[in-house]
Amino acid sequence: SATMPGSLPVNAESCWPKDVGIVALEIYFPSQYVDQTELEKYDGVDAGKYTIGLGQARMGFCSDREDINSLCLTVVQKLMERNNLSYDCIGRLEVGTETIIDKSKSVKTVLMQLFEESGNTDVEGIDTTNACYGGTAALFNAINWIESSSWDGRYALVVAGDIAVYASGNARPTGGAGAVAMLVGPNAPLIFERGLRGTHMQHAYDFYKPDMVSEYPVVDGKLSIQCYLSALDRCYTVYRNKIHAQWQKEGTDRRFTLNDFGFMIFHSPYCKLVQKSVARLLLNDFLSDQNPETANGVFSGLEAFRDIKLEDTYFDRDVEKAFMKASAELFNQKTKASLLVSNQNGNMYTPSVYGCLASLLAQ
Amino acid sequence: SATMPGSLPVNAESCWPKDVGIVALEIYFPSQYVDQTELEKYDGVDAGKYTIGLGQARMGFCSDREDINSLCLTVVQKLMERNNLSYDCIGRLEVGTETIIDKSKSVKTVLMQLFEESGNTDVEGIDTTNACYGGTAALFNAINWIESSSWDGRYALVVAGDIAVYASGNARPTGGAGAVAMLVGPNAPLIFERGLRGTHMQHAYDFYKPDMVSEYPVVDGKLSIQCYLSALDRCYTVYRNKIHAQWQKEGTDRRFTLNDFGFMIFHSPYCKLVQKSVARLLLNDFLSDQNPETANGVFSGLEAFRDIKLEDTYFDRDVEKAFMKASAELFNQKTKASLLVSNQNGNMYTPSVYGCLASLLAQ
Repeated sequence: SATMPGSLPVNAESCWPKDVGIVALEIYFPSQYVDQTELEKYDGVDAGKYTIGLGQARMGFCSDREDINSLCLTVVQKLMERNNLSYDCIGRLEVGTETIIDKSKSVKTVLMQLFEESGNTDVEGIDTTNACYGGTAALFNAINWIESSSWDGRYALVVAGDIAVYASGNARPTGGAGAVAMLVGPNAPLIFERGLRGTHMQHAYDFYKPDMVSEYPVVDGKLSIQCYLSALDRCYTVYRNKIHAQWQKEGTDRRFTLNDFGFMIFHSPYCKLVQKSVARLLLNDFLSDQNPETANGVFSGLEAFRDIKLEDTYFDRDVEKAFMKASAELFNQKTKASLLVSNQNGNMYTPSVYGCLASLLAQ
Repeated sequence: SATMPGSLPVNAESCWPKDVGIVALEIYFPSQYVDQTELEKYDGVDAGKYTIGLGQARMGFCSDREDINSLCLTVVQKLMERNNLSYDCIGRLEVGTETIIDKSKSVKTVLMQLFEESGNTDVEGIDTTNACYGGTAALFNAINWIESSSWDGRYALVVAGDIAVYASGNARPTGGAGAVAMLVGPNAPLIFERGLRGTHMQHAYDFYKPDMVSEYPVVDGKLSIQCYLSALDRCYTVYRNKIHAQWQKEGTDRRFTLNDFGFMIFHSPYCKLVQKSVARLLLNDFLSDQNPETANGVFSGLEAFRDIKLEDTYFDRDVEKAFMKASAELFNQKTKASLLVSNQNGNMYTPSVYGCLASLLAQ
């Protein structure tokens, strides 16, 4: 019954600014940390539960002199000073966070203090909120702005920041804190592919913060892992469908696989889940391959898993073990380097994936 | 020291989709209300304080069976059904609100329940938060998306919703509640002008919600009025500068005045402030006119105010009275009709200005 509102302009590609992406990136995280081996002892759990089981070495934490506003103020000022930028060259500023200390006044307005001396108040953008997705939503908004008629030639500034603290129990060692600021513009060294985002959005109570006076989230650990992995499946499927369509238009008729990625970075609640995610993507490649080579190569010995269904395997130990092994080399080559900050500082929520990006770029 | 990242594409205008704007609009507000004359009696204040002083006739309020999620679910479902739209024709959905019942899980994810049957989960956008600006930020984001390479030909859906309740005292009669949903796409009957937005963003504590367990905001009423009027001054100045630059490019050398607007709609905390805002804009026109005609016409009798400064006049009764009188006809012609919902239902925060738009369109 629906009619689409219009069609994409034929010659659009030639009109958007060239190479829109991340021009500069700055990261800030606390100078204090908890050693996870000490937390294992303190919690009275088996040695290795956090360090090997979760893949976490240290967990950064904020002192009582820091909050979400100070984290974001620091990272923005550092980015501006290090790149010798004046505040009137920013036309858009937005913040992704779920660390709420005011229900109405945005962190973005607090950051406007840094702009006061320049007299620049014509700056679009506010705070975006949905668990860890806020930073990515802000980044996508900034890129869209630069390609739209609203763009006035100035940079966009995207800030992602969070303080992740959990009640005592299983989730506590997955805490952390930090902020990332990204300068977005054309002619960037890190370019976003056009038309190739895969998104998965769903109503689920895996992680939420209904207790207004507590810093702690309510977490359903098992559901959370299922949501993460199923979203990964869906996004990869959507992404592949989009790139296949683009390739077919160009006259190329082949399948996209993980070999086509230079690197793979992920949102990292803890490093082990990222490693499992690489295995999961390989499982996706395997199941979507009409005729996988199982005699040798990356899929060798996996023929027993030919008829499994993605949605039945979130907690299947045999599948996980087999594909963790099969993807070990892939993980080491394309993902491991991105986990430095996550391993040494912990989960930062919204900036997590950009901390992974920073880790990769630094090595 | 700053170098701009690039320049606008020369032939961009011809490449963005044509006539991007609001394709359809739906409004929902509570069926219960408080009569403001009864509230005057209950509060023991002078008759007319709320009805004439603030310009408010009724104040809508939610029952305990409604919250921000139900308001937004209702308005989206109504928009989709009335326009006979299927949920898979939506590629972007975002919500502007400051009515927080969860600090992390967005209202947008709750709305995704409506999409479940369609199987469409590839839907970008989340919640945006900064007091009443959230709905406008979401709307700008949706328009940018449609003009960017991220657009896939589907509609964007923008939802603005809030429940405004105040502690007993001066601010209480300015409450209200409601939600507006807008379908955004090309070939729209309501088109957004390109490159002509004036924005003013500033760090100020006029209105905020630092008490996590209270529905009530903290309001500095006087500062709030000053912030509103000074932001209006700044935005109008930025807007005029931008349109003057555009006109000069086209070879037109004349000044922009209120006569160039067909209608003027505003965010309405209460109707009287909107009426004062029209007067304020006329004051802007008067002061920026190098040689205003004060012998007759709209500025007649105002020569005594020739040397005043905008920033000194936020609470100047003589200036207010003179320009309210001078702008009365302008208000009646271009703004009054837009205040129907605001007068009868009260302030809805993020959807307020779009409630004014709906009021204007309905008459």
